[in-house]
Amino acid sequence: MEALVIHSPGDLRVENIPAPAVGTGQIRVRIRTGGICGSDLHYYQHGGFGAIRIQQPMVLGHEVAGVVEAIAPDVQRVRVGDRIAVCPSHPCGTCRFCQQGLQNHCLDMRYFGSAMRMPHVQGAFRQEMVVGAAQAYPLAPGVSDAEGAMAEPLAVALHAVNRAGPLLGRKVLVTGCGPIGAMVVIAARRAGATTIVATDVVEQPLRKVAKVGADEVINVAQAPEQLARYAQDKGQFDVLFEASGNERALRAAFDVVRPRGVVVQLGLSGSELTLPFNTVVAKEFDLRGAFRFHEEFGVAVDLINQGLVDLKPLVSATLPYRDAGRAFALAADRTQSMKVILDFE
Amino acid sequence: MEALVIHSPGDLRVENIPAPAVGTGQIRVRIRTGGICGSDLHYYQHGGFGAIRIQQPMVLGHEVAGVVEAIAPDVQRVRVGDRIAVCPSHPCGTCRFCQQGLQNHCLDMRYFGSAMRMPHVQGAFRQEMVVGAAQAYPLAPGVSDAEGAMAEPLAVALHAVNRAGPLLGRKVLVTGCGPIGAMVVIAARRAGATTIVATDVVEQPLRKVAKVGADEVINVAQAPEQLARYAQDKGQFDVLFEASGNERALRAAFDVVRPRGVVVQLGLSGSELTLPFNTVVAKEFDLRGAFRFHEEFGVAVDLINQGLVDLKPLVSATLPYRDAGRAFALAADRTQSMKVILDFE
Amino acid sequence: MEALVIHSPGDLRVENIPAPAVGTGQIRVRIRTGGICGSDLHYYQHGGFGAIRIQQPMVLGHEVAGVVEAIAPDVQRVRVGDRIAVCPSHPCGTCRFCQQGLQNHCLDMRYFGSAMRMPHVQGAFRQEMVVGAAQAYPLAPGVSDAEGAMAEPLAVALHAVNRAGPLLGRKVLVTGCGPIGAMVVIAARRAGATTIVATDVVEQPLRKVAKVGADEVINVAQAPEQLARYAQDKGQFDVLFEASGNERALRAAFDVVRPRGVVVQLGLSGSELTLPFNTVVAKEFDLRGAFRFHEEFGVAVDLINQGLVDLKPLVSATLPYRDAGRAFALAADRTQSMKVILDFE
Amino acid sequence: MEALVIHSPGDLRVENIPAPAVGTGQIRVRIRTGGICGSDLHYYQHGGFGAIRIQQPMVLGHEVAGVVEAIAPDVQRVRVGDRIAVCPSHPCGTCRFCQQGLQNHCLDMRYFGSAMRMPHVQGAFRQEMVVGAAQAYPLAPGVSDAEGAMAEPLAVALHAVNRAGPLLGRKVLVTGCGPIGAMVVIAARRAGATTIVATDVVEQPLRKVAKVGADEVINVAQAPEQLARYAQDKGQFDVLFEASGNERALRAAFDVVRPRGVVVQLGLSGSELTLPFNTVVAKEFDLRGAFRFHEEFGVAVDLINQGLVDLKPLVSATLPYRDAGRAFALAADRTQSMKVILDFE
Repeated sequence: MEALVIHSPGDLRVENIPAPAVGTGQIRVRIRTGGICGSDLHYYQHGGFGAIRIQQPMVLGHEVAGVVEAIAPDVQRVRVGDRIAVCPSHPCGTCRFCQQGLQNHCLDMRYFGSAMRMPHVQGAFRQEMVVGAAQAYPLAPGVSDAEGAMAEPLAVALHAVNRAGPLLGRKVLVTGCGPIGAMVVIAARRAGATTIVATDVVEQPLRKVAKVGADEVINVAQAPEQLARYAQDKGQFDVLFEASGNERALRAAFDVVRPRGVVVQLGLSGSELTLPFNTVVAKEFDLRGAFRFHEEFGVAVDLINQGLVDLKPLVSATLPYRDAGRAFALAADRTQSMKVILDFE
Repeated sequence: MEALVIHSPGDLRVENIPAPAVGTGQIRVRIRTGGICGSDLHYYQHGGFGAIRIQQPMVLGHEVAGVVEAIAPDVQRVRVGDRIAVCPSHPCGTCRFCQQGLQNHCLDMRYFGSAMRMPHVQGAFRQEMVVGAAQAYPLAPGVSDAEGAMAEPLAVALHAVNRAGPLLGRKVLVTGCGPIGAMVVIAARRAGATTIVATDVVEQPLRKVAKVGADEVINVAQAPEQLARYAQDKGQFDVLFEASGNERALRAAFDVVRPRGVVVQLGLSGSELTLPFNTVVAKEFDLRGAFRFHEEFGVAVDLINQGLVDLKPLVSATLPYRDAGRAFALAADRTQSMKVILDFE
Repeated sequence: MEALVIHSPGDLRVENIPAPAVGTGQIRVRIRTGGICGSDLHYYQHGGFGAIRIQQPMVLGHEVAGVVEAIAPDVQRVRVGDRIAVCPSHPCGTCRFCQQGLQNHCLDMRYFGSAMRMPHVQGAFRQEMVVGAAQAYPLAPGVSDAEGAMAEPLAVALHAVNRAGPLLGRKVLVTGCGPIGAMVVIAARRAGATTIVATDVVEQPLRKVAKVGADEVINVAQAPEQLARYAQDKGQFDVLFEASGNERALRAAFDVVRPRGVVVQLGLSGSELTLPFNTVVAKEFDLRGAFRFHEEFGVAVDLINQGLVDLKPLVSATLPYRDAGRAFALAADRTQSMKVILDFE
Repeated sequence: MEALVIHSPGDLRVENIPAPAVGTGQIRVRIRTGGICGSDLHYYQHGGFGAIRIQQPMVLGHEVAGVVEAIAPDVQRVRVGDRIAVCPSHPCGTCRFCQQGLQNHCLDMRYFGSAMRMPHVQGAFRQEMVVGAAQAYPLAPGVSDAEGAMAEPLAVALHAVNRAGPLLGRKVLVTGCGPIGAMVVIAARRAGATTIVATDVVEQPLRKVAKVGADEVINVAQAPEQLARYAQDKGQFDVLFEASGNERALRAAFDVVRPRGVVVQLGLSGSELTLPFNTVVAKEFDLRGAFRFHEEFGVAVDLINQGLVDLKPLVSATLPYRDAGRAFALAADRTQSMKVILDFE
């Protein structure tokens, strides 16, 4: 079977890897689609991010959908032939955090295509994969494989929205309109936000986000005053989703979020941030980190299956996995692409 | 000016009443539509509910929309000619509860068409009305007057949803499919619930509710076993909205709400309820009352104005206010009507 | 080894039972003290409560402390000779609720001395017991065995307090001054409540509760007007802990709890309750059930070990386990006793 | 009447100022004691902090207690001769934030001795003062004037504790042991924290804090490894109160606070802070600003009056107000003083 293996920055190879056997409680999946994520790009471009670096060859990828090819005798959750989204998260279930319902902080987490631990957890950009049956979420008939692959980033967005608390009737600002920011816009609309403003410094993603639900988009590189309008009375937004990891974005947002506003930080950044922390004190922000997800993966698949969200407009291009280099270059170009999908068939 | 004045059960008269002057901070509104509410019906049929009884003639009505006819010189919020929904709630702003942001518990509340205090607060089923400018919420161009009149019951439903906490991804049961129950279904969908099941004992409202967003409707008089399916593993619903005020509805729901589930009680009942309270203890329900609304009125108008909810299917009939008797009889017949609208023009 | 075995109402025998072997992850405890709980009394007096009835002989008891006599080779948490409080709760760790951090709702719970499942889970009123090492909580040097045995009911009270949310600066009413009500008073004081009023219909427990922290005690059988003073402005208490399971207690409290007040129901009752539910709606109570505990057992032991609570005044009498009949009779007499402790040595 | 008026950094004068008349709803207070706060020191040493600078002569002081000398005819809350703590906060009551119960974010706040607005709000270090009756909180007989003056900083600490949510059974870290940090320790203990560790870089305040309730104190300048012990399993503390405004304190604490831990930032800093924000994301901290207080002032007085907290050990020295220069120098020397009290009699 073939897989996309990263060896070092820029060195992404199509390689043959052995197909593992199906153990108790497991299933074998024929992968059909995979979405390229920002972290995949970081491994490809820079060999990692922050302290997390590739130290051994690793199969990339954690946003995938496919077809169940085989199941262990004890598996009841899915049947052979089912089309599924694959959840890349595999918490231990027994550690202190798992027993508190905080599985995304598991002390022994295995997450596909992540160099956080040694040996690395191999990823899902491959033709076949063996996963736990509990990681399989069946897709409804009308749902495309690409939509299935996007359940993972949608789960990230839903988790951020859950971290914010109820959004019904709230005024929401989203800074950063990459795929995650775009999905936060979609999730915030689904959760009942009445005003959604999105900002970025690149025009193309803003245009896309305007189409999937934002009431207003602002290019803060060109028209920062459009955002500054919202600063009156100590700030007009109830909730900020910061999805850019950019210090200036967060700083500008501090002025337009109201006292006791909620700031959900989900964007990671390449370096430390320097911020006017006295504003956090004086306006009593609730600043909450959002990291991955847990039960939100199932919710993401439910929302997609029921047609309660529409992610299709976010797909910019679909390329065969053997053109990975071209696909990754495209995914890295924000003027051209939002979500790039790899086709493994 | 004419108004609909209730004198005693069944004695609802079209009467001439004087038009009040416009004071500081006030506006005069020409009422165009009014929705008949369950409490209007109680006054009409029984002279009140519980300890609240009509003790003097009272203009009925608190769900209205109209056109601004005149404004005091200091008013800036609206202009003459604006089409508005009128918020019937007028808290004092200074009592202990108003200063805590709990205006719906104001110690000196004035609420249109309510016999809770003496003298009663006169209602809004009339041709003209003077209200505080802060009670006026402009309607967007495409929004009908009937939709404007329904901002009030929608606010009640939104308040119930807010009391429940976040609904994104939650499994929701709504018991009782009158206008409020129906709007809870609409609001729960808007807030991101992934499963919504609604129950009633009358077929017609169930059919209506299936059209506005419920995933499944159950006639618990005919097929209680359909609801009982959800009892497995101590209960499958995360949230119950009890909008019937019916003891049997609440009792049946206790079996299908999961431990630590949220039960929002918004239906009032004609008598005390006898309940297996040990279940509340053993399943650790969070049982929360929901009463009227405050900031949700503005949210209701926003959602209607932006087309984020569609209330139009709930209107069963529109009758001239001079046919009030017929309108009230129709509103009381659940096999024929959901929301009955009075036309004041 | 001897144990206290209930066969039917009133038929409690001292019997010889076999001593189980110590398995992996387990320890053997020599039980030194056991507290008689209300549920033990119900089994003894009535053979159970509600639908839960003794169907086979069962060792009673779940509030115990003792000394570690032996440990399995893999156990590191405690050592032979340690004095410990024994947690009677053993959730499965893997079910839906355990994985959400709601272990007290475990679908496969084993709780000492409970007839909720068949075969019953045998209890802890015995000379020796084998338990999981995770159920052992070491006691600090100065702490008595009786205090150790009271960690369990304190955990129940702490869980109720946790269900109420923060109490710092809150005005608290406790209805029902049995051992649990008394411990709620102690826990509420520890959590920072500024006003604590406790009610009962028996004088002796009220006097006791006044000594352990209540600012005011009211005998509502004799002086209901003392409680009614708190009804002004829709009610003065922020939080009610209902620990009596008595309908009249809850009904009277409805008048003195403020709108949006929190009502924690932890008392179970012998029958269904009839209540003015419209008050729950109109005052928007947050009525929350509280059932057993989970992490609170460890917190209870910490508070006792650090001297942050003092439970010693609650012990009414200590009797040898062979005088169980007398001990149970005493425990059942509220004019004579608060907490009765059995001595197993 | 004499008052302490700041003109520019270091220029603090005892000046005669006119005594204002008592208007409707007001009272005149003879000030007896005043506590020197960190912000008083900043005005004295640097002429302000951040963007807030003295632009005109201003009476300093906002932590005071005194005796009611006169009351307007309509005042019922206090009587002449009452000893009171004076709340320095006077929100407008009608703005958007006041109506949400967020009075500390009032758009038209008047806070004694603050240069935040022009003209500045004159302070309370003076012999007589006219305040609103609602700002007066009677002291219990045994409570000293100095304790009354400390109700204000205790209210700040209580507000921080309220921002953290329930502390019962929680493990708490307090960084920065000035008067506010010390009162956070006292408040956290009162609220039921089971472990309280406090850090500073100066030995004397640490010793003081160990006496008022901290279980462990760590001089992080000398023994940072003592704090680092708590980093295991992603961090052992549930809640951090950051009361130093020091970047290194916050940074070190990030390692020892557990995932989903709460970080309450109440210390202000002289400059912006540079922080590893990815840690906030990856550990999903809830980072909450805490600014002043509202209802906590009354709670502070209640706790002091009932003897539920003991602030007396925090008073380092009491000096006559005419020795203000010496008192301010002493207050600025952390090796010598915790809270310095001015005597106005």
